[in-house]
Amino acid sequence: MSNPELCWLSIAEASELIASGELSPVELIDAHLQRIDQTDGALNSFITVMAEQASAEARAAEDAVRSGRRLGPLHGIPVGLKDLYYTRGVRTGIGSKILADFVPDYDAGVTESFRDAGAVLMGKLQMHEFALGASSENPHDGDAHNPWGTSRITGGSSGGSGSSVASGQCMAALGSDTGGSIRIPSSFCGIVGLKPTFGRVSRHGVYPLAFSLDTVGPMTRTALDAGLVLNAIAGHDPRDPSSADRPAEDFTAGIQGGVEGLRVGLPQEYFYDIIDPQVTQAVQTAAGVLEELGAHVEEVSIPALDHALSISSTILFVEAAEVHLEHLRERPDDIGDDVRQRFEVGALTPAIDYMKAQRARRAFNAQLADAMRTYDVLLAPTNTFCAPPIGERESVVAGRDYPTRTLLARLTRPFNLTGQPAVSVPCGFTESGMPIGMQVATRTWDEAMALRVAHAYQQAAGWHTRRPPLR
Amino acid sequence: MSNPELCWLSIAEASELIASGELSPVELIDAHLQRIDQTDGALNSFITVMAEQASAEARAAEDAVRSGRRLGPLHGIPVGLKDLYYTRGVRTGIGSKILADFVPDYDAGVTESFRDAGAVLMGKLQMHEFALGASSENPHDGDAHNPWGTSRITGGSSGGSGSSVASGQCMAALGSDTGGSIRIPSSFCGIVGLKPTFGRVSRHGVYPLAFSLDTVGPMTRTALDAGLVLNAIAGHDPRDPSSADRPAEDFTAGIQGGVEGLRVGLPQEYFYDIIDPQVTQAVQTAAGVLEELGAHVEEVSIPALDHALSISSTILFVEAAEVHLEHLRERPDDIGDDVRQRFEVGALTPAIDYMKAQRARRAFNAQLADAMRTYDVLLAPTNTFCAPPIGERESVVAGRDYPTRTLLARLTRPFNLTGQPAVSVPCGFTESGMPIGMQVATRTWDEAMALRVAHAYQQAAGWHTRRPPLR
Repeated sequence: MSNPELCWLSIAEASELIASGELSPVELIDAHLQRIDQTDGALNSFITVMAEQASAEARAAEDAVRSGRRLGPLHGIPVGLKDLYYTRGVRTGIGSKILADFVPDYDAGVTESFRDAGAVLMGKLQMHEFALGASSENPHDGDAHNPWGTSRITGGSSGGSGSSVASGQCMAALGSDTGGSIRIPSSFCGIVGLKPTFGRVSRHGVYPLAFSLDTVGPMTRTALDAGLVLNAIAGHDPRDPSSADRPAEDFTAGIQGGVEGLRVGLPQEYFYDIIDPQVTQAVQTAAGVLEELGAHVEEVSIPALDHALSISSTILFVEAAEVHLEHLRERPDDIGDDVRQRFEVGALTPAIDYMKAQRARRAFNAQLADAMRTYDVLLAPTNTFCAPPIGERESVVAGRDYPTRTLLARLTRPFNLTGQPAVSVPCGFTESGMPIGMQVATRTWDEAMALRVAHAYQQAAGWHTRRPPLR
Repeated sequence: MSNPELCWLSIAEASELIASGELSPVELIDAHLQRIDQTDGALNSFITVMAEQASAEARAAEDAVRSGRRLGPLHGIPVGLKDLYYTRGVRTGIGSKILADFVPDYDAGVTESFRDAGAVLMGKLQMHEFALGASSENPHDGDAHNPWGTSRITGGSSGGSGSSVASGQCMAALGSDTGGSIRIPSSFCGIVGLKPTFGRVSRHGVYPLAFSLDTVGPMTRTALDAGLVLNAIAGHDPRDPSSADRPAEDFTAGIQGGVEGLRVGLPQEYFYDIIDPQVTQAVQTAAGVLEELGAHVEEVSIPALDHALSISSTILFVEAAEVHLEHLRERPDDIGDDVRQRFEVGALTPAIDYMKAQRARRAFNAQLADAMRTYDVLLAPTNTFCAPPIGERESVVAGRDYPTRTLLARLTRPFNLTGQPAVSVPCGFTESGMPIGMQVATRTWDEAMALRVAHAYQQAAGWHTRRPPLR
């Protein structure tokens, strides 16, 4: 009988216990496999559970640690991968019917990084089909269910990543973020999700969605854990043309630095046009917490933000359509309606509209870069509302009806356009008991600052200590 | 009575004579105004002759030189500007009916540069409508006529620039080159035309055609003169977002360096698929001259070249359509048929095709960059044939019939895709007495090398001493 409390340790905690010999990786992995067994019927986080392989890796980790060959903080830690990361010999279906039986013959760059760090891969995680949607409802693999209310969506596209980490099935998962696909489910599931700077983490062996927007990043329960994972996966990979040749960095080194004296901007445009007042309230309260911790918080006007959605939709749908043109032409009936419709929009978009969007993007990015000269951090809500019920096509926000789909990735898009880092961190709960998240966005290449602010906030606010009821 | 021989001096020669007081700028400009008067009825190089202003500037230059305030080698030198360079208070019609009456209220960056160097602006030069065509036949402003055979085209789009310099109306002109628009008329008119590295010369106040391809460069009778002009116009201009922040450079400093030991590659793919054997022969003979001068010449295989035309057409037509969408929608009947058809192709191109072309462009550029690691210089024909008769819609090359339009910008496109410098230099004449040109392409930012090779070749071959008969 394994100890279920092990599933609620942070990576930092578990890692220390493993290093000191107080915790065996085998025990840790067993507890998580049992947790998966007990909860995944209700959650559907996993598409593939790699129980045997994980147990073998746990034993190997145990041996290594015992014989003084511990590889670092991720050694023996249970992790999961969204099902678009290539895993050699293991089905990688991209949440789709068309590629459901695809088995890569090589590992993604980040799969290798996890192995090199000694992390134990528990399996492949559910996602929105082809990563092109923010609900993680899935007509092929089944919907992902939110641990805080299993009749609700997890958000997406990295839905299984969100629910697995939030529910104690894994200590970390990798998501991918093209328009918010890390931050949205992190926010809806009450965990921390970091979209690093564009080019920071290798996309080699990551099934693409939109080449000028796609990023790879960690989803964990604490900012410190996100830093530990980022340390393992960041770095130049010449196999990925978009990978930046940046020096290695310890993203946790300055994480205790606090927020004293930091300049925090609260962008006013766009983020509050359509929003549940409970979300606004939670973010304002969080801003107050940062202020109490010594940060200078002020409102900032960035008018370009109003164009974020239209610019990013054009770019995202066109780039996605280019990747999937053959699927759209040859197997349209095997693609979910919502995803197919987006592909069709992309395929029909004239080049001049795409160019106008890219031109607008440059102006947009210039305005955001300008704001980042004044502020160390921008603070904004991650979502307009909390996770809605699965299957709900219309949602009411602040008394008005909207198509749910249009609300889901509204607030995360700006930072995909700019490529700057943004971490979503839990900042409260709605009256219905669902998590609320806020984004901390920082300057390009300054993930360390985003994690430092998120860490200071988490230490002060403590939301991450709550456990989901799996209702 | 002015001395017509003054019109055949090089800039380098005239400049020395002015510096030593042996030649007055007034005398020089008078000779050129007279030459324009005598020849432009047959040539139609000019859309606007700025005789009064030029005379005034010549007098000012004379005064300045006499009182020891000579500004440099272009002071008092007669130059022309293609009619897409903004000239404050002077009509800038872009060769079009739609913008025929456009009078800018500011000068282009290069117009300023010319003024700062003391060059005397003789007027605005004929061009293919909106720079989107390589013949300089023009239904609005009248066709440009080739000084070597006035029933023939000058090539384009910088047709008036080519004919004015070739016929002794100006000592230098600026062209612009998006797919060959500097090099094609330079080759057809028997002069030197340099397309600098993308980003080297400001595009501020230059009416755009295709933002990822447009470049600005000099057309002169010698490589040395091209270097003198480039010295005056190159440099960073923050008003042009594509302008590179490169240090100033003297492009003529090493021009006497010769070709001893240089590695010259002759690309085999693409350039000789459709070609007049007289052109092939001329380029081969020129390669032999370089070999005699000490260069190592060898054939090189660059398979990507086969895709140059399709990649660049997609990019060029789409980017041009974006610029001119309003013109196309609102005044289609006021655009020449050939240009309108290209706009229509661009406007109807799906974004995914444009993206595929940009993706192919990256692979193309990588292959070219790879070749440039081995070779200091690539040598290739500028055109497939010599300037055809005006109005000829079909041309016979090597015994086969082709639409003339498709032949004109065939061989110049590769170096717009890469953005590397390429100079066209005269390398002989056909049996019909029409000039043949060859391209010398070098590494990005190494215009000095292109000019050095072209200069060595011109000194050895001497083609630039022939004068057009104005038949």
